[in-house]
Amino acid sequence: MGVPLTDEAELLAGAVRLVQEHTDLPLCIDSSVVEALEAGLAAYEGKALVNSVTCEEDRLERVLPLVKEHGAAIICLVNDETGIPATAEDRLEVCKRLVDAVHGRYEIPLEDIVVDPLAMTVGADPQAVLTTLETIRLIRDEFGLNMTLGASNVSFGLPSRHALGAGFLAVASYAGLTSAIMDARNSQTVDACRAADLLFARDEWAMNWIAAHRQAEAARA
Amino acid sequence: MGVPLTDEAELLAGAVRLVQEHTDLPLCIDSSVVEALEAGLAAYEGKALVNSVTCEEDRLERVLPLVKEHGAAIICLVNDETGIPATAEDRLEVCKRLVDAVHGRYEIPLEDIVVDPLAMTVGADPQAVLTTLETIRLIRDEFGLNMTLGASNVSFGLPSRHALGAGFLAVASYAGLTSAIMDARNSQTVDACRAADLLFARDEWAMNWIAAHRQAEAARA
Repeated sequence: MGVPLTDEAELLAGAVRLVQEHTDLPLCIDSSVVEALEAGLAAYEGKALVNSVTCEEDRLERVLPLVKEHGAAIICLVNDETGIPATAEDRLEVCKRLVDAVHGRYEIPLEDIVVDPLAMTVGADPQAVLTTLETIRLIRDEFGLNMTLGASNVSFGLPSRHALGAGFLAVASYAGLTSAIMDARNSQTVDACRAADLLFARDEWAMNWIAAHRQAEAARA
Repeated sequence: MGVPLTDEAELLAGAVRLVQEHTDLPLCIDSSVVEALEAGLAAYEGKALVNSVTCEEDRLERVLPLVKEHGAAIICLVNDETGIPATAEDRLEVCKRLVDAVHGRYEIPLEDIVVDPLAMTVGADPQAVLTTLETIRLIRDEFGLNMTLGASNVSFGLPSRHALGAGFLAVASYAGLTSAIMDARNSQTVDACRAADLLFARDEWAMNWIAAHRQAEAARA
């Protein structure tokens, strides 16, 4: 809804109402404007996911009461006033402070926290993906929290992005990622997530894998 | 060369000579018949890779002197007389005994050992791939040895095998697998290996990734 010179709060509330007329799927309400988040949450029926807060005190103070009031879940980015930590250990440290604030101070349940360990492009930093994967592993082992990230960030600026995204999603799932912000229309990346479920014992006897294969076959026929 | 009622030793030696007339690529000499391995190694010019020994004393005693004599490398499967260990810890234990025999007793250099951590189909056992991945991780952390495995085993009996194999290869590479016995003619699985190299900082600035993309583009043009 971030269109310049518009009233983002009004736009977001209108969009939430319109989408909910057409689907019962849960929505993620995403804005950097707190007033827009507030209007979107007020218009939303059901349990929303809010994207997002960082570990910056002024943002936490404004967004978390809204999340608490509406019983929403919240995506928490592991960066703070000083920027994005370069190491996995420092990102884990920010995650600890986020859990202290969101759960400890604002009493939002742990299951409503979705941590974003921050995915960056490997084209700009060869270590970027290894750092993200190590952050995921540490957060899983330390907190066991749900996680999400912008999967396509990894391949930004590179060719054959879907093949790269597919590999990344499978490995991130192994490390402990539990969801992703991704294009669900692309079969290669969706297949990678389904493959991960099967490979890591979350799709026993390949029931979902085989069903998806049959559905694709039927669609081609 | 395992054709019934033929002289496998003669066939294998002949095949080695014939292939070496056409390519300088290194060969893997694969037979369960020790006499065939012996004939193949004698015919081979260069450093061969022998597939394989298990941790069974009578096999080790017959195969390892040949490997040592010809300065070959050897694929070591982490199973013994009792079969394939069910847990990663037990496979690591077999790996230790293999290293003791191959390196300790027969003085074959550690860099000539290629461990096969054993990949099994996830269609028959939901935990199969997790066990293989954990075995890879343990062997990497404990010994830092090269590893290989039959990648397509994982998807045996299932549909969309290449998509499953691609996800597996990316994750196995993350866990520490350094090579695979795989069909190098399939672009999906080869792309997964190239993606793994890029994602795990073994293809800095994506030089190989971009070159492969351009080559594929040129082939399509």
